[in-house]
Amino acid sequence: MRYEFYYWPNIQGRGEFVRLALEAARAEYIDVARGDEAKGQGVPALLAIMNGDGIEQPPYAPPFLKAGKRIVAQTSNILLYLGPRLDLAPASGKARQFVHQLQLTMMDLVKDVHDTHHPISSTLYYEEQKDAARLAAAKFIEVRLPKYLGYFEKVLQRNPASGKWLVGTSCTYADLSLFQIVEGLRYAFPNAMAREEANYPRIASLAAKVRTRKSIAAYLASPRRIAFNEMGVFRRYSELDS
Amino acid sequence: MRYEFYYWPNIQGRGEFVRLALEAARAEYIDVARGDEAKGQGVPALLAIMNGDGIEQPPYAPPFLKAGKRIVAQTSNILLYLGPRLDLAPASGKARQFVHQLQLTMMDLVKDVHDTHHPISSTLYYEEQKDAARLAAAKFIEVRLPKYLGYFEKVLQRNPASGKWLVGTSCTYADLSLFQIVEGLRYAFPNAMAREEANYPRIASLAAKVRTRKSIAAYLASPRRIAFNEMGVFRRYSELDS
Repeated sequence: MRYEFYYWPNIQGRGEFVRLALEAARAEYIDVARGDEAKGQGVPALLAIMNGDGIEQPPYAPPFLKAGKRIVAQTSNILLYLGPRLDLAPASGKARQFVHQLQLTMMDLVKDVHDTHHPISSTLYYEEQKDAARLAAAKFIEVRLPKYLGYFEKVLQRNPASGKWLVGTSCTYADLSLFQIVEGLRYAFPNAMAREEANYPRIASLAAKVRTRKSIAAYLASPRRIAFNEMGVFRRYSELDS
Repeated sequence: MRYEFYYWPNIQGRGEFVRLALEAARAEYIDVARGDEAKGQGVPALLAIMNGDGIEQPPYAPPFLKAGKRIVAQTSNILLYLGPRLDLAPASGKARQFVHQLQLTMMDLVKDVHDTHHPISSTLYYEEQKDAARLAAAKFIEVRLPKYLGYFEKVLQRNPASGKWLVGTSCTYADLSLFQIVEGLRYAFPNAMAREEANYPRIASLAAKVRTRKSIAAYLASPRRIAFNEMGVFRRYSELDS
């Protein structure tokens, strides 16, 4: 199966969680919106599915995945679909459901991070909501960040199978996502993370393990990995990193 | 199976989407945190699971559901689990996945609604972020509300099976959730909804069908249905209803 992956071409954003799963499994896929318009790819191909009259089950927003005729949207839902197919989900239904639950909690964290720089509306520029952003980021760093990281550290600690991966004995897409969150938080909040991180040794160790996984290391070193930037979810604005 | 449902006892909040599914199916369940502390229920029972050392796969936050020994958290994940068991999900995997995708999009809407009154932080009082809230609510009503409702109207319109339910020919938990969202929006933004609603006739008709469903009508008339209030997600603050 050659997957068609659709997401905005200049950012990691929510799409990166799907890219990481595809890359970890060395799946065959096209990152369509980053492709050549002359070949029917690029952003117009993404918009054609978003706005096309003929799409019976349209996505609300990118990212979405085309697998044959099937279109799957919502990051966590895409990963729920891909997990077993890419050997990135546990075998049992109960464990699979917990992996999905963790992914959903991570997407809540991602939304909270987004809202540190866009607390009032994503339709306004950052500069138009800078004062609110400063307050939102301070509260995020003070309250939410330790709550989320403490939670994932606890999940790792309580995993009776290993304590190295979030669920069971091998790497799932939730582990890849937690790696991405650590990378993103380090990029966006270097001061806060330098101060906080030592409290979460299991998370740091998991992130290091994912980073050095062969397929992931190759991906991170390739031009396919978009660098963090100030258009994505994780943005480095020094005034928000208290 | 008698389910144990756990959520804050004084609000509809995200838990209401689960309550509606349980009620629509006339499932046997206990709303634990609303029960009697003397009988081992009430909020302490909820906190015992949240904070208990012995929980191998702890939830990050309510709502969560206990089904036998299994604990399932995250609203959409609970509904994914309950859907087939309560006959509120389609038979095919593809359709089931789309129902889940719609639910996830609705939960994004719910978070956006929450952020209209708590744009900066849920750890601050509404009164401490009232100016930001006014701007956030205006932008939500102007941009997001029509985008979300337009999307769900389109999904209804494109459902080849009926156009009456979101997916397939019968009521799923996503339809119950869309009903709840309509009720919530009408409560929180009566002016905006009075102005906007006529644009989404299929949504209004779906909401009316759910409301008059026997089990749902009985639930809504019962003391089990908590009234909308200013502690929940959908709050009526006239200054936010432009």
